This record gives sequence, structure tokens and C-alpha cells, in this order.
Amino acid sequence: MKNKNIFSIGELGLIDVIKKQFATSKNNKNIVVGIGDDGFCFKSGKNNICITKDMLIEDVHFKKKWITPQNLGEKAIEVNVSDIAAMGNVKPEYALIGLGLPPKTSEVFVKNLFNGFKKACDKYKMIVAGGDIVKSDKITISVTIVGLYKEKVIKRNSANNGDLIGVTNTFGDAGAGVMLLYKYETKHKYNKDEYFLISKQNNPKARLREARKISKYLTSLTDASDGLYTSVDLLTKNSDKGAEIYMDNIPISPSLKKVFKEDKKQMNFALFGAEDYELVFTTPKSKAKLLKKLVPEISYIGRINSSKKVEYFYNGKKQKIKYTGFRHF
Amino acid sequence: MKNKNIFSIGELGLIDVIKKQFATSKNNKNIVVGIGDDGFCFKSGKNNICITKDMLIEDVHFKKKWITPQNLGEKAIEVNVSDIAAMGNVKPEYALIGLGLPPKTSEVFVKNLFNGFKKACDKYKMIVAGGDIVKSDKITISVTIVGLYKEKVIKRNSANNGDLIGVTNTFGDAGAGVMLLYKYETKHKYNKDEYFLISKQNNPKARLREARKISKYLTSLTDASDGLYTSVDLLTKNSDKGAEIYMDNIPISPSLKKVFKEDKKQMNFALFGAEDYELVFTTPKSKAKLLKKLVPEISYIGRINSSKKVEYFYNGKKQKIKYTGFRHF
Repeated sequence: MKNKNIFSIGELGLIDVIKKQFATSKNNKNIVVGIGDDGFCFKSGKNNICITKDMLIEDVHFKKKWITPQNLGEKAIEVNVSDIAAMGNVKPEYALIGLGLPPKTSEVFVKNLFNGFKKACDKYKMIVAGGDIVKSDKITISVTIVGLYKEKVIKRNSANNGDLIGVTNTFGDAGAGVMLLYKYETKHKYNKDEYFLISKQNNPKARLREARKISKYLTSLTDASDGLYTSVDLLTKNSDKGAEIYMDNIPISPSLKKVFKEDKKQMNFALFGAEDYELVFTTPKSKAKLLKKLVPEISYIGRINSSKKVEYFYNGKKQKIKYTGFRHF
Repeated sequence: MKNKNIFSIGELGLIDVIKKQFATSKNNKNIVVGIGDDGFCFKSGKNNICITKDMLIEDVHFKKKWITPQNLGEKAIEVNVSDIAAMGNVKPEYALIGLGLPPKTSEVFVKNLFNGFKKACDKYKMIVAGGDIVKSDKITISVTIVGLYKEKVIKRNSANNGDLIGVTNTFGDAGAGVMLLYKYETKHKYNKDEYFLISKQNNPKARLREARKISKYLTSLTDASDGLYTSVDLLTKNSDKGAEIYMDNIPISPSLKKVFKEDKKQMNFALFGAEDYELVFTTPKSKAKLLKKLVPEISYIGRINSSKKVEYFYNGKKQKIKYTGFRHF
């Protein structure tokens, strides 16, 4: 057998390797949502519990000099709450924080990091319930959130033909923000628009409130942690469907337009720039107006069909889109 | 303010920093066991849920060339099940696996690692319910286990005056095993006793079955992941008690005695060698015989008192013990 490395088989190849070994969760009647969604959901008696687990690693997900320790702490919680939001109407209840820290880390850094954890947890009325601190070379933050829910959760695999594809707010800002940090680091004097993009990268907010407002009208839902392109791919593939995406309708912020003037660049950030943490969902056409009333920051960017492929249109013309996003492997 | 690094304030100083920021868990009536025990336990309606979270990091907790990927996968699960066992009679139900992998990691390594996860999860009839894979410099494994329980859990803070201190099996083997690996790495031809010590390091087994058998007779309980000395410290400090420890009674394996002949060395491994993953508990004297009948591998090594200090005796003589164990910080 040829032994490839995991970069050469890619993230999806890797997930296939793993799924083959763990194709068992269907056998358990208490599991509501198993491997391959934003959160793991199970029944416990009459109660429903949803658990997320997301890791942030120094020099992969962030650079220490680009983000304050407090923002880093907040972000570690927000990205997990975003996974909770991606399941619909779930209340995040407890947070467990696993931390790897280099021994040379300063006490002030740790205090500020925990200030960030606390600020974000307080915001959601969550309790930090435990965790683990170990030594490591790179700062490693592994958060687990326990959420409780009553209504049904919204999975990735239940989009229907004809459903509209909706999103919250704007796309590409966080990806553009990290590009600025790569280019100018923190020495640069950023203008207001640049600062907006960077704060979307360093200080993202989970769309929990929005998800809870609209969840009962949704057929499928995820959050855009790896770019809009990947989110659309996840919803269509998991639902065994296809889609048409109207790129003209993808919401781009005024700041992104000012800082990166070229249309193509904006679109690249929107499709492949990661970490926007916005909601990407499908809903029957009949509910579209109601949702926009509940959450005015919603835009509709496309429509589900039965083609099993995702086609992109710009100005009415079909576009060839090549994946250029970040890949872990 | 002087900004110390966390190595200079030490692990306990670090925990104090954190506890001050999160002294809130007492306010929530659903929390049964909060920060500072082996697992986090909460009520959800009529159900009781216990969650653990433990991280293994390459070159801190293991070296890639010292352990097979399958053993590494098994160990990552076992050490979390050990935390579940340390709460008493809890059934581990679901495992979530967060993984950081360097892109150069081979496909075969990943398959074998997951074989290990699967083998250990199958053993406990646990389901792998989700997780997350990201890029990292060092292999990072963060496991979360969700357990369910009916009877009350056994905390660290409820030892009583006069209780006996009991342990399962033998101590020091895993620490001696890692010492052999440091010295000879994997090139050496190990004899049977050396191999036993190394396998206790690389292939530990959680004492779940034992914990479930005896839990209802225990007053306090933890597992010895950081050495017997630290475990005794945790039980006495959390219970606001002291103890006498009779070092002659600390169980040492025949293999450890053969490989490291010096008494003092054996005792150092037993007290400060980490990763034995044995149970350390307290029980009323009246139950001591019954427990030994239920689990013959139990030894009694000391007794709880009200002194608030832990004193060590060898051959009837009080000993001065200096902490020489591994410290993360």
C-alpha cells in the first residue's frame, strides 16, 4: 500500500478515512445528530443536548502579535457558540476550556485571555464549568460547549428543491482582515475601513440571536467558518442536492469595497475567505419575506435544485469557480 | 504590576488566577460538580451528565517514536475514561475527538490512530460522535467524553477523618516506563519486566470497572494521572483534611522492583511518576474489607486526619518528602 501524507489526500479524503471507521452512530437511537455537522446532538431522557468542540492553534488560526489575548479568549468562545447557532435554537449553557500554554507565557497574558473567555461567556450567560491546562509549544485552545434545546435542531442534510439559500450580514470581511494583517502586521496605521475588516477577523460574533429567531422556518443550516463556497457545498452535498448561486446577490460590506476595489478580489474573499461566522441556510420561498422581517441583515443568494452540482452566475452568466481557499490539509 | 511568566507562578498559582475569575458555578443549581474535579457533572431534567476533557500533546505527553499510533489513539481515550472512572459509577457514552495534525502526517498513521480510538471506544461501548481536525505543528489530541450516571458521583472534597486511603494495583510503573524510553528510546531490546513498565506508560487502562464496583462505598475519589503524591494532596486539600501515608504499604510491582532495585528510586516513581491512572480513594474503615473483596487489587496506604498536612512514614519513621514530579509550569 502506498502511504500518502494527509496533505496529499486532502481534508475530504481524510474525513472519508475517518467516516469509514466510525459508521456506527446510526445504531444509537439517542443520537439526533452525529459525525459531520456543526454540533453533536443527543437525547438524554426528555432533554436534548448539543455539544460543540473547536480548536484554535497559534500560527494556524491566529498569530499572537495580531490579536490581543482578550480578543483571542472571546473569539475562542464565539466560534464555538457559532457552531451552537448553526444547529438552530439551542441555548449554550456550559463551556469547558482546554488550554495548552508555553511555560514562558506571561501571567498578564493568561489573565487577559481569561478575561476574554469570561466576557464572552457572560454575554451568553454561560458558565465556565471546567477544563484542563497543559504545557505546549504553541498556544492551543480547545473549547467544548454544552447547549440545551427544546425544538428540533436544524441539520445540514435537509435542504429541499426550490428552497432559497439565505445568509446573514456580509461575506469576505474576516478573510480580507487577515490579509491586511499578513501584509502590514500590527505596525501599520489602519484606517476605519481596514480596522473594520480586521475586527471582523479578530473579534467575530456568533449569530446566535439571529439563528434562534429564524430556526423554525429553516430546512438546513450551517455557519460559514470555512468560507461561503464551502458552506454551500456542505448544505448541498449533505442534502444530496445542487444549487444556483447568484454572485451579484452575495452581500459585500462597504468597507471591503473601499479597501479592495477590484470586484474579483471582493468575490474571492467572500467565497473563500474563512471565519466570517455568518449563518448560511435554506428556507422555503414562502418564508423568505418573513425571515427578512425577523432579521433584516438577511440576503438571498441562490436556490436549491436537484442537479447535484453547484453553479455560480454573475450578471446572468455562468462562471467557472476554482477553489482557492485555505486548506488545513 | 510585575508580569511574571506562568512557569514562575507555577500550576497552582495559575489555577488560582483562573479560579478567581470564575467563582460563579455555585450559583447554578444544575451544576453538581464544577471546576476543579476530574469531570464536570450537571443535571439535565431527571438525567445526570458528566463530561471530561483531556489533551495529549506531542513532545509534552508523548513522543511519536516511543508509541505506536494505535496505542496513542487508545491512550487518548483511556485517559479520558479514567477521568470518568474518577467520578464513580458513570457510564461513558459518547466521545468527541479534536485533532491537530501536521500536514506531513502519513495516511497510515492517521488510520492506525483512528484504529486505536475505535478499539478503545468499542471496549467501553462508546460511540465516536464528532470532532474536528485542524492543522498543527505538533500532534494534538483533545478528547471530550460524555458520560451518564444515576447514583451520586464521588467528588474529591468529601473525605472524612479516620477514613482509610485506598488505591488500585501498583504505582510507579508508568513513570519508570517513560524513564526507560528517555534512556534507551525504542532501539533497545527490552526484557519482559522493562516491557511491562513501558506498556503501562504507552497502553494504560482506565479503572472504570473497579470504580463502578466500589463507588457507593467511597467518600472521595480521584485518579492518579499526576502521581500518587499529587492525588493524595488533591483529596486532602479539597476535603480540608490531612493524612498519614505509610510508604511501606504503597504497592510496587515486581517488575519495577526488578528493573530499578533501589528502594528510594521505586518510591520516587510511585509518588511522583505520573500517568499510572489508578484509582485513589477514601472509604470508612468499616468498608475496607468489603472493597478488597470486590476488587482484590486494592491496597490501603494511609488514613485521613484533621491535621491539614500530609505526613509520610517509612518503617514507622516520619520522612521528609520533597516534590520532584513533572511540572507543566
